[in-house]
Amino acid sequence: MSLLKQYQSVRSHSVNLCKNLLIEDFSLQASEEVSPPKWHLAHTTWFFEQFILVNYLKGYQVKHPQFNFLFNSYYNAMGRRTARNQRGLMTRPAVSEVFEYRAYVDEAMSQLIQDAKEEVVKLITLGLNHEQQHQELLITDLKYSLWHNPLDPAVMDIQEYSIEAKSHWIDVKEGIYEIGYSGNEFCFDNELKAHRVFLEPFSIASSLVTNGEYLEFMDSGGYEESRFWHDEGWSWVQNQSQKAPLYWEEIDGKWTYYTLAGRKDLDLEASLAHVNFYEASAFAAWKGARLPTEFEWEVAQSKFSWGKRWEWTNSAYLPYPGFSIAPGALGEYNGKFMVNQMVLRGASVATSENHSRPTYRNFFHPQFRWQFMGIRLAKSL
Amino acid sequence: MSLLKQYQSVRSHSVNLCKNLLIEDFSLQASEEVSPPKWHLAHTTWFFEQFILVNYLKGYQVKHPQFNFLFNSYYNAMGRRTARNQRGLMTRPAVSEVFEYRAYVDEAMSQLIQDAKEEVVKLITLGLNHEQQHQELLITDLKYSLWHNPLDPAVMDIQEYSIEAKSHWIDVKEGIYEIGYSGNEFCFDNELKAHRVFLEPFSIASSLVTNGEYLEFMDSGGYEESRFWHDEGWSWVQNQSQKAPLYWEEIDGKWTYYTLAGRKDLDLEASLAHVNFYEASAFAAWKGARLPTEFEWEVAQSKFSWGKRWEWTNSAYLPYPGFSIAPGALGEYNGKFMVNQMVLRGASVATSENHSRPTYRNFFHPQFRWQFMGIRLAKSL
Amino acid sequence: MSLLKQYQSVRSHSVNLCKNLLIEDFSLQASEEVSPPKWHLAHTTWFFEQFILVNYLKGYQVKHPQFNFLFNSYYNAMGRRTARNQRGLMTRPAVSEVFEYRAYVDEAMSQLIQDAKEEVVKLITLGLNHEQQHQELLITDLKYSLWHNPLDPAVMDIQEYSIEAKSHWIDVKEGIYEIGYSGNEFCFDNELKAHRVFLEPFSIASSLVTNGEYLEFMDSGGYEESRFWHDEGWSWVQNQSQKAPLYWEEIDGKWTYYTLAGRKDLDLEASLAHVNFYEASAFAAWKGARLPTEFEWEVAQSKFSWGKRWEWTNSAYLPYPGFSIAPGALGEYNGKFMVNQMVLRGASVATSENHSRPTYRNFFHPQFRWQFMGIRLAKSL
Amino acid sequence: MSLLKQYQSVRSHSVNLCKNLLIEDFSLQASEEVSPPKWHLAHTTWFFEQFILVNYLKGYQVKHPQFNFLFNSYYNAMGRRTARNQRGLMTRPAVSEVFEYRAYVDEAMSQLIQDAKEEVVKLITLGLNHEQQHQELLITDLKYSLWHNPLDPAVMDIQEYSIEAKSHWIDVKEGIYEIGYSGNEFCFDNELKAHRVFLEPFSIASSLVTNGEYLEFMDSGGYEESRFWHDEGWSWVQNQSQKAPLYWEEIDGKWTYYTLAGRKDLDLEASLAHVNFYEASAFAAWKGARLPTEFEWEVAQSKFSWGKRWEWTNSAYLPYPGFSIAPGALGEYNGKFMVNQMVLRGASVATSENHSRPTYRNFFHPQFRWQFMGIRLAKSL
Repeated sequence: MSLLKQYQSVRSHSVNLCKNLLIEDFSLQASEEVSPPKWHLAHTTWFFEQFILVNYLKGYQVKHPQFNFLFNSYYNAMGRRTARNQRGLMTRPAVSEVFEYRAYVDEAMSQLIQDAKEEVVKLITLGLNHEQQHQELLITDLKYSLWHNPLDPAVMDIQEYSIEAKSHWIDVKEGIYEIGYSGNEFCFDNELKAHRVFLEPFSIASSLVTNGEYLEFMDSGGYEESRFWHDEGWSWVQNQSQKAPLYWEEIDGKWTYYTLAGRKDLDLEASLAHVNFYEASAFAAWKGARLPTEFEWEVAQSKFSWGKRWEWTNSAYLPYPGFSIAPGALGEYNGKFMVNQMVLRGASVATSENHSRPTYRNFFHPQFRWQFMGIRLAKSL
Repeated sequence: MSLLKQYQSVRSHSVNLCKNLLIEDFSLQASEEVSPPKWHLAHTTWFFEQFILVNYLKGYQVKHPQFNFLFNSYYNAMGRRTARNQRGLMTRPAVSEVFEYRAYVDEAMSQLIQDAKEEVVKLITLGLNHEQQHQELLITDLKYSLWHNPLDPAVMDIQEYSIEAKSHWIDVKEGIYEIGYSGNEFCFDNELKAHRVFLEPFSIASSLVTNGEYLEFMDSGGYEESRFWHDEGWSWVQNQSQKAPLYWEEIDGKWTYYTLAGRKDLDLEASLAHVNFYEASAFAAWKGARLPTEFEWEVAQSKFSWGKRWEWTNSAYLPYPGFSIAPGALGEYNGKFMVNQMVLRGASVATSENHSRPTYRNFFHPQFRWQFMGIRLAKSL
Repeated sequence: MSLLKQYQSVRSHSVNLCKNLLIEDFSLQASEEVSPPKWHLAHTTWFFEQFILVNYLKGYQVKHPQFNFLFNSYYNAMGRRTARNQRGLMTRPAVSEVFEYRAYVDEAMSQLIQDAKEEVVKLITLGLNHEQQHQELLITDLKYSLWHNPLDPAVMDIQEYSIEAKSHWIDVKEGIYEIGYSGNEFCFDNELKAHRVFLEPFSIASSLVTNGEYLEFMDSGGYEESRFWHDEGWSWVQNQSQKAPLYWEEIDGKWTYYTLAGRKDLDLEASLAHVNFYEASAFAAWKGARLPTEFEWEVAQSKFSWGKRWEWTNSAYLPYPGFSIAPGALGEYNGKFMVNQMVLRGASVATSENHSRPTYRNFFHPQFRWQFMGIRLAKSL
Repeated sequence: MSLLKQYQSVRSHSVNLCKNLLIEDFSLQASEEVSPPKWHLAHTTWFFEQFILVNYLKGYQVKHPQFNFLFNSYYNAMGRRTARNQRGLMTRPAVSEVFEYRAYVDEAMSQLIQDAKEEVVKLITLGLNHEQQHQELLITDLKYSLWHNPLDPAVMDIQEYSIEAKSHWIDVKEGIYEIGYSGNEFCFDNELKAHRVFLEPFSIASSLVTNGEYLEFMDSGGYEESRFWHDEGWSWVQNQSQKAPLYWEEIDGKWTYYTLAGRKDLDLEASLAHVNFYEASAFAAWKGARLPTEFEWEVAQSKFSWGKRWEWTNSAYLPYPGFSIAPGALGEYNGKFMVNQMVLRGASVATSENHSRPTYRNFFHPQFRWQFMGIRLAKSL
């Protein structure tokens, strides 16, 4: 597929995700961690404008002088910006103006792509991968925000459930393994440098934990026994009024689950979603197992199927040996987040097509649950 | 004017206030204290539905079973409700559905009004006064929320400025005066019972404090001298990054002021707005004067013109002798707020027509500034 | 009694209050609102040093250059000071050094008193009244701090209980009454100026509410019914784990009460203590009565006995007509606190001898309970 | 040395550390993270009582029924406990009673030690290592608490400064290395199991960063440039009023440093202390280097001298392969803290004698600075 086609395909997918939204929904932001759909649509556009068009398209005029303030996410090198918890307050520019902004930038990008040098092609590829990341966030953020509405709105056809086969243990031998990306296609800087890691022997589960298994943990008092939990996890539990995964609600004695297609009965055979690292670890401890490290996961991943849930690992998000931060604002993409977060591997039902690979490192703080996060067990041998 | 005409007039005014809004603006809520326009439109409608139609219109079906949860403001007796700081998250029902809700209730009310007994007429009159209160809040809340947008949106034609004549002192003699409402028209319960108050002699200013006068206070170091301030006011000052009234901003050495018609140069002759009780008191102390009590204000008000600014008094919001709380949910209207708030008297440029009188008692916590709050000075003689 | 004798009597009483304390107890501070005994002992001494000795005793050398920083309470005009919530961190100067400080200042004061002019006598009288206020706080603060200790320490012989006679209503006629202090002895500035107030007719209870009566309120669901409560009171209730007065604890089905002499069974005949304004108001509403205003209390007080509990009134703490703030730091004594607090009248079992009078105005924020605060009911006629 | 001698030696060292304290100092607690000296003295004693005497000394009577509540630190399995931020409020039991408690338990332990089986010897050894950990905390907590006192108290003779030799790079080759404890003496469970790690080649500095070098970082704008910082580190910087290591203060243009022996001039040649992980990382980035991993540190440590500062590594505190949690309350010792903390290696001037080894893993949250934390640089080759 030509770069232009790729560009058009990714860009139109973002718009397509919003096709069932009301204008009202576009500004919705229920907490600091999530962003409104309109902001995602504008921010990904700003990324192309500020990092590519402004520098590489001769004579390019920015669409609006204040959009740099409004739609910068976290790049300190790009100047001041709207506070993260106030993105939902930007009712202006209107949704229609954001679509005009997208069209304006797309037009300029089409021009630039005709004749783009390798350096620019690399940046465009980064911009498209960046937009794909925001496509997943647009979905998960919107789910989180809409969940606050007692009317249980249904706005998207994501197939959230996926039935898990019965799990068995897969053994992996000790040895030196190569970790990280070493191909010729795009990867993020945090997947580099490819390097060697020694692994002691371990086993890993062939399937993800299901809703039914997690319900057993709950029913056997998992949320009442401190010994399964990290100390911070236990504090977190004490502060929860509801002891269950995010989006679960017991109605008339029956567990239900809020999806983007509305509230559903809980499917016990389907893979669990929306637990945080503390819950994932506590479940594993209750099972007499543990979470895999990200290295174990990467080494073993060819032996099981994955892609429906982001899988919590017991690895902290840290730089690989030889990792280096790019100069300029794009150096802020990954490196500055490498503390206090845990790595998730795999991909989810909300991940954009062509946006996953075995070396991909996703990362979140241990308390967060709003991504499609699940559990795969491991054991030392 | 017939009750039906009155009803239609008040109800259509609410809608009319929103005529320049984008759909996006209807859900905007920048802090817990302010509510989105859509919520005001729905809540005032809910008030007629729950307090009148449900009880008095035979066969009336509520529009939607969850609207009681969504649009109750603070009536504990009416059951659980949306958290106040989450009103902006209710993107559904859509704006169009809220307008349908209004039409549905208006239709039923028209029927009921045909043949309303006195008890119902009284409730309808209360409902209309309630809606007028929310009309003012709709304006001031919206101003506050839009102010967070760096694009300085202009959405309404409120004539915010009003030029003040030079002030002189008006003397009032000591004596026993009657305070509170004693007429035959509508008043709120907090204006009752009419009772007697003894006042020592005092003087009151014929005009409100202007922007220019307040700027003198600022320029002479008013925000840097603790001795003018209440202890809590001084703490408040320490936590402010900007030492100026709300909506003021110094741009290139010139003071500007955000209005609902966009940002304007500060008019030094116009009456000051958007100061809190602490600022009002500190200004008065700096001037060697004080704020009037609400009783002094009520006694003196026939001797000066008022109506452009809510005027801070030095009276706490407390019950009048013989005040009693109505049974049922409507008893929550006023009485339960009678602690930690200060009384404001008068009316403002945002007050609905026919919604002011000399005995009207408005009240806010001393730190709030987002109403059109101004200062009138007084002195003991 | 000569001024010197008075001085010695008040000063030694402060020390005497601490006679059963361990050295460890002198620095104890369980919350921002309360201060450690050592701090009270030092601060009252600092008051004499900074407001009197430094200005009026020729050649006086301050005891230590940093004591002004350490022991200033809230006087902005006297410079920077230890944060209020860090008073308990000042383990140095040692307790013994604070006693030396007291002796040093007492010695200098004795000298000054020999030959004090009227201006100085007035300041000394203020200093002694100030120290008496801190004597009460020393007791109530210490009770609050020690209560956090599960060992229920007993350290003082305050007779906290006092049996109430059966109450009857006392009627008072409408009329113009004089309020405020008009004698020739000492009073605080907030008791001035004496002025006239018109009162509508009312009744007031001859006795205080007892523990037994309050228990009836609790047992009849008083803490579960929002209609008895102010809106802020109701929020306060929701955040309480224990729905009972401060220091009450139900142990094995029996109510107990922590006193400075250790934990005791609750005496149902004794006057209630340690409720806040919200609780006092809710109790009154439940009884179909209300709290008196401070004016009603002052007018009626000669008709009942008082002095065991500070009695919540329904009056906000506001300046009297003609109230003026003294120049300099002492002007900060009272005036700057006149917002968001409620007046309490009377005196308590912890009030120092000769430190009460009918015009005395005590004041606290409505949520506080750690003083010996009780309830007297009133009614409009 | 016999076990009894060891026991006596460790126990008396705790007491000896307090020899210059005033009684007042024993309850001092300036924040939730630090504990008062008295609490350390009692908690370490409680550890022997609850984990050893109660289970292994026949007929042992606990000293006081509530000490289990008062002196439990974080063992959920041992029941409820005093809130961590209220340890300073326990003025009772008195200091003298805590010393009696120590004597009582020491007496019983002497008895038990006569005839202790291997299982008990192991627990005693754990108890002694536990007490040594608290000896270091007693020192660092006390320093932190006393620092809040403007009198700069001097209470201990810790030689805080240590001059660093000029640093050079030490190269280490790639390879499989063994990590973790494999000897026969005592180690903590977090040092197990010994396992293999593959390291890519790297260099590590022979000396620690000095105060002088850190001052260069400060003077060159290190705290003003976001690009050196983690995102969370940058937020932390924004909220600091003083941009310098803990305990530094610029007085009359000269940097000073608070030590337990009082405030001193900053020694530029001495090893830096009291920076957090964010500062350590930012300094390293500014130098074009990075922090070592804990594995690199352990492999290289025989090639440089260490022991004056805890050295931040870029390793998160996570379990080693095969790590397992002991059953019962002692299983809470380490494992439950393995999230959101970073590993520090080495030892410090406050570490007790015989309480350090190359495999020792200390750990703290990245924002903390009150331990003697320093920086050693590393580089990938």
